[in-house]
Amino acid sequence: MQVHPQALCESEHVGQGTRIWAFAHVMRGAVVGADCNIGEGVFVEAGAVVGDRVTLKNQVMVWDGVTIADDAFVGPGVIFTNDSRPRSPRMPRVRERYREPANWRRPTRVERGATIGAGAVVLPGLTVGAFALVAAGAVVTRDVKPQQLVAGNPARPRGWVCECAGRLNEELFCQECGAVYRWAGEQLVPQGPPHV
Amino acid sequence: MQVHPQALCESEHVGQGTRIWAFAHVMRGAVVGADCNIGEGVFVEAGAVVGDRVTLKNQVMVWDGVTIADDAFVGPGVIFTNDSRPRSPRMPRVRERYREPANWRRPTRVERGATIGAGAVVLPGLTVGAFALVAAGAVVTRDVKPQQLVAGNPARPRGWVCECAGRLNEELFCQECGAVYRWAGEQLVPQGPPHV
Amino acid sequence: MQVHPQALCESEHVGQGTRIWAFAHVMRGAVVGADCNIGEGVFVEAGAVVGDRVTLKNQVMVWDGVTIADDAFVGPGVIFTNDSRPRSPRMPRVRERYREPANWRRPTRVERGATIGAGAVVLPGLTVGAFALVAAGAVVTRDVKPQQLVAGNPARPRGWVCECAGRLNEELFCQECGAVYRWAGEQLVPQGPPHV
Repeated sequence: MQVHPQALCESEHVGQGTRIWAFAHVMRGAVVGADCNIGEGVFVEAGAVVGDRVTLKNQVMVWDGVTIADDAFVGPGVIFTNDSRPRSPRMPRVRERYREPANWRRPTRVERGATIGAGAVVLPGLTVGAFALVAAGAVVTRDVKPQQLVAGNPARPRGWVCECAGRLNEELFCQECGAVYRWAGEQLVPQGPPHV
Repeated sequence: MQVHPQALCESEHVGQGTRIWAFAHVMRGAVVGADCNIGEGVFVEAGAVVGDRVTLKNQVMVWDGVTIADDAFVGPGVIFTNDSRPRSPRMPRVRERYREPANWRRPTRVERGATIGAGAVVLPGLTVGAFALVAAGAVVTRDVKPQQLVAGNPARPRGWVCECAGRLNEELFCQECGAVYRWAGEQLVPQGPPHV
Repeated sequence: MQVHPQALCESEHVGQGTRIWAFAHVMRGAVVGADCNIGEGVFVEAGAVVGDRVTLKNQVMVWDGVTIADDAFVGPGVIFTNDSRPRSPRMPRVRERYREPANWRRPTRVERGATIGAGAVVLPGLTVGAFALVAAGAVVTRDVKPQQLVAGNPARPRGWVCECAGRLNEELFCQECGAVYRWAGEQLVPQGPPHV
């Protein structure tokens, strides 16, 4: 583990080989796996869970209730959320609600190998499927299926991508790496080995 | 008042009970009220005014000319602005304009109890009304009415919310807390006590 | 040159008169010109090139492969990118691709005097033309022409602006500074001196 002298790492649950850069803060109670790259200014709150080989680019904010699986890429400035109707918790009108996390905290899950593009915002209570690709600047308001490409505000489905992140054409062929997929029910499965 | 050792608080006008977290900066000349929560990496510029019990989540930027009233919630990564046609002030072509703040600075006001969702951008010269709810990722280009819900880029009206932030149905009933409202002219007023 | 004690400036190529504010980081191998203003929390990566009199407002991220010409204004929270189909580089499936920058890095260019509004995201491989105006919150997915105004997600053309950033009317007249332009082929050229 390598922690920049200007970073704050208070967690005892950070895996081997993970690097934490300047002005980042991993709170006590946060879990971060091995071989991760935690960029400058990133914030990982107590209660957040990050897998192995995950990349969190600069300024990403991962709150309590957010789980990010192995190999995910979270682009610069991506913002997760965990409260679908936030108010300032010290306002008398809502103070009671905020006494108990179960009253307001909604979990978010990013599955294995997914990409969240730069500056995207992910609303609470959602799942971004394995190897999905959320375009830069998207505002994610619904679940994203595995290998699905979504873009826009609100984010809308735009197609499907390969595990390598290349766009799949109508024949489910990836022009970037040569992999071919087929539908098995609602799931894409690789058809033969990829030609990396 | 509680200031993280890695924060910079240069203002003498920060109220009792306010906490300022790491890598945040409250400039001399900024005013921040009591019982606020100023998140990591937040920037409050000289000339900005923040009320009591306000929550500024991580990385919020509050510039000169921005006023945020009591009990407001400003989500992570929200960006305010104060110049509607910015150029680099040291460019000879516009240097003269930037000598005098009155030439370019346009004020912004967030009223009592309003919520600005994560990653929203608020253009200059606007007012976000009391208890309004700006959805995450919205780009606010027009005034937002009290208790109005707006979303999208540009942000468009999508309905009305309760003081508790719950959505109001067509009967102006809040399913979250049981409050009922009625229109008094163009203003929503509570009809009987809320059932918190 | 003036570097805040809480900033990290490792580059030997920063011009005279440039100020670098707290929690900003200019990496060794980054080039920054003279009389720039590098705001709080800004990140300028090795391989990035920034011209003279450029303003990078707080939290701007400028990656390897991004070039910003003289007099440009980059608003708060603007995010550049340099990889059009990112995955986490330590994921075995894509590790090979990330061994060589030429496999994934795509350059971005912001031309002289351009403005990128607050919170905008600029996709990789694009050029933002001289004195263009990218509206706050825009997601730029195509080249922007000189003096062109673009807005939205994805960003769409909305008109033309003066070098001073004022909107041009249909007669190509700037009501802000009195300048008049005409079309010379596909390019706007000033017609007579501006009345600053």
